[in-house]
Amino acid sequence: MSDDVAAPAAFEIPEGYTALEWRRGFVNQIGPLYRRVRDSSYCMGFLVEDHHTNGLKNAHGGMLMSFADMAWGHVVSVETSSYWVTVRLTVDFLASAHVGDWVEGASEVLSKEGDLYVVRGRIWAGERTLMTGTGVFKPIQKRDPRPGERAYRSE
Amino acid sequence: MSDDVAAPAAFEIPEGYTALEWRRGFVNQIGPLYRRVRDSSYCMGFLVEDHHTNGLKNAHGGMLMSFADMAWGHVVSVETSSYWVTVRLTVDFLASAHVGDWVEGASEVLSKEGDLYVVRGRIWAGERTLMTGTGVFKPIQKRDPRPGERAYRSE
Repeated sequence: MSDDVAAPAAFEIPEGYTALEWRRGFVNQIGPLYRRVRDSSYCMGFLVEDHHTNGLKNAHGGMLMSFADMAWGHVVSVETSSYWVTVRLTVDFLASAHVGDWVEGASEVLSKEGDLYVVRGRIWAGERTLMTGTGVFKPIQKRDPRPGERAYRSE
Repeated sequence: MSDDVAAPAAFEIPEGYTALEWRRGFVNQIGPLYRRVRDSSYCMGFLVEDHHTNGLKNAHGGMLMSFADMAWGHVVSVETSSYWVTVRLTVDFLASAHVGDWVEGASEVLSKEGDLYVVRGRIWAGERTLMTGTGVFKPIQKRDPRPGERAYRSE
């Protein structure tokens, strides 16, 4: 198992990124995933490897959607330090990601009505936009703040 | 690796279903997946296991979306015997799937304009609808027909 999800030895993690520590279940299966926090903004990233690919040797659509779900919904974690669920996700596939591509994703909050976050997101590899879309996410349970989240206090 | 994606020994594959033979890359990572063909209709299915779960021990949203992509787009394989890509996918999350649940999915074609298939899909576990949505899929390259596809001839 670890052979499949460990990054290749030659891979150098892009500057500012660190590996997500939470790596159980499905997230372990599709990882490793990375995160970069800068001031109040953040990105998530992953390196396309064989275990992410479809029959054409590109990143599988399911992988890109799974990554979009996590990268776009992450803003709810940052803002509320809660567990959250996805209510709706709409994705438009614009271009393919190939083995060896470094893929990144982020979102911005469009609205927050009651407890529903509506965000607009993008997934890209270098200069290429791979996917755009909209997500609706709902926090369901508060938890302790983690590093990089608004409510986190290091002392 | 095989420990993670092999179905539990006690699992009895529901009647009419057979395991998908194509199990490389991402599909191997999220499998095993199953398919049932009856007359001209088909379903796909999977058993929720630990490697499909999120922190709440339900099937991860990314897993359900990945499964929806495959189960709903499969109609393009059946009708055209082509490789295809997803153009757009919209999913509404209605209920959770738990470890041990047998999850199924299928779609119906709403329209076929030019080379774009628009389908309406559903994912369910027993009586519970887990997800509904719409997919736009595009065949990109013909290949040899496979068993269960319209153009397949067994002789």
